[in-house]
Amino acid sequence: MRLATVVTPHGTRHAAAATGSAGWRALPAANLSDWFAFGAAAKLGAPLAGAVPTLPTPNPTKIVCCGLNFSDHITEMGRELPEYPTLFAKFADSLIGPNEDIVLPRGLRVDWEAELAVVVGAELRRATLGQARDGIAGYTIANDISVRDWQNRTLQWFQGKAWDASTPVGPVIVTPDELDPVAGVDVICRVNGVERQRGNTRTLVFDSAALVAYASTFTTLRPGDLILTGTPGGVGQGMRPQLFLEDGDEVETEIPGIGCLHNVIRFTD
Amino acid sequence: MRLATVVTPHGTRHAAAATGSAGWRALPAANLSDWFAFGAAAKLGAPLAGAVPTLPTPNPTKIVCCGLNFSDHITEMGRELPEYPTLFAKFADSLIGPNEDIVLPRGLRVDWEAELAVVVGAELRRATLGQARDGIAGYTIANDISVRDWQNRTLQWFQGKAWDASTPVGPVIVTPDELDPVAGVDVICRVNGVERQRGNTRTLVFDSAALVAYASTFTTLRPGDLILTGTPGGVGQGMRPQLFLEDGDEVETEIPGIGCLHNVIRFTD
Repeated sequence: MRLATVVTPHGTRHAAAATGSAGWRALPAANLSDWFAFGAAAKLGAPLAGAVPTLPTPNPTKIVCCGLNFSDHITEMGRELPEYPTLFAKFADSLIGPNEDIVLPRGLRVDWEAELAVVVGAELRRATLGQARDGIAGYTIANDISVRDWQNRTLQWFQGKAWDASTPVGPVIVTPDELDPVAGVDVICRVNGVERQRGNTRTLVFDSAALVAYASTFTTLRPGDLILTGTPGGVGQGMRPQLFLEDGDEVETEIPGIGCLHNVIRFTD
Repeated sequence: MRLATVVTPHGTRHAAAATGSAGWRALPAANLSDWFAFGAAAKLGAPLAGAVPTLPTPNPTKIVCCGLNFSDHITEMGRELPEYPTLFAKFADSLIGPNEDIVLPRGLRVDWEAELAVVVGAELRRATLGQARDGIAGYTIANDISVRDWQNRTLQWFQGKAWDASTPVGPVIVTPDELDPVAGVDVICRVNGVERQRGNTRTLVFDSAALVAYASTFTTLRPGDLILTGTPGGVGQGMRPQLFLEDGDEVETEIPGIGCLHNVIRFTD
């Protein structure tokens, strides 16, 4: 099943549709987080005409991001395979929808990071791997757009990762029965149509369930929370010469089996 | 003025009282964040009998923490004075009140970090230093209790800083007309009655307004959000031999002019 928060001509609605179905149907829940928590057994509602997916979970209580998780990207950045996941946080204000502009002030070194995002579907604390696996509501796409000059100002990456309106997420959430990142899905980024990243999640050092279980050791995860699983090789900072995004650049972030994000960089004064 | 969220025999209430007054008076707002945003001109309500301060702002949208900000602590950790503030994030789930236990699993290297915390009182984005200064609702105390073995597992400190129920905050918020951290206030930590930290905020590399303005460059700050300004020298990790907290240890975190937090370490299996 594919789940989405959709905009209709009558306003924002929360809808689900079976994969392969052309249409969206309303969910009996105020938002997808509530749907994961309470509604999974409920019946789908009426068809929604003119529905367009937007940011699926706009208000996660937590966004935990993993760096250095694709073995090829780790090599590219000149590091060794890690014993523990490298984690940092983002705020919900960073998230934007699948067709929204990435709006940042002019003059920053803005880079792309295509990622598989795990959507948490249950309240989890000190979860076992099995509990973590069962607690995954589904998978979506994210681009952890990074302001490299701020990220590299200090030892902590956070200030390069937490810019408002900089992290596209969506367009839909695909449930685990239809997508298996352990078996492998491609994670692709194109800039102005040129492919810059292509990795496969079977090469992740820490898979989705491992990351969910690990984060739940120290903090409670809740329905709608997001875990970003890290980006493959091919970021602009790793290129020689380095390449950063410019005003008007189109970033496409794709995972076959989920869909594609289309976002344009807009620099402001 | 001192502001607090208080527990009364009749349940949690939000109250303010003038400094020096023995009693608390009800505020006409659902919580302190709303009071900062909308209520500052409103009159105080009736006296509240038996009021005891608890966690002042339980649901900040953002908690931004600064590391390496006291010049003596920077020297202790073997680093140079920074050009930019080193920032990381915490979740609201990390916060506990002034008399609550710090509950963590047994076997961790748990350390103390007494800090001045800035409470944001306005919505701020790309604030100037003057706007940031005017947007400070007040100051409170925090202890950024840190799980050093997890903090040091990777380059990013986050996983050692974001444990649920580990960061005491309170007991009250003192408004800027009554407390001037730039002129200097002492930040003190005692463990089982032994003084371990004593720094003064006049030695901060980045003062409160500078940190608020800096964070607002990349993200929107809102009433009730917290900025932790960093800890002075004297943490357990910096001692030789290193010293970490044990089950039953009492941690007192004090800033004269604000008050004192009393929290006991409780290790669980």
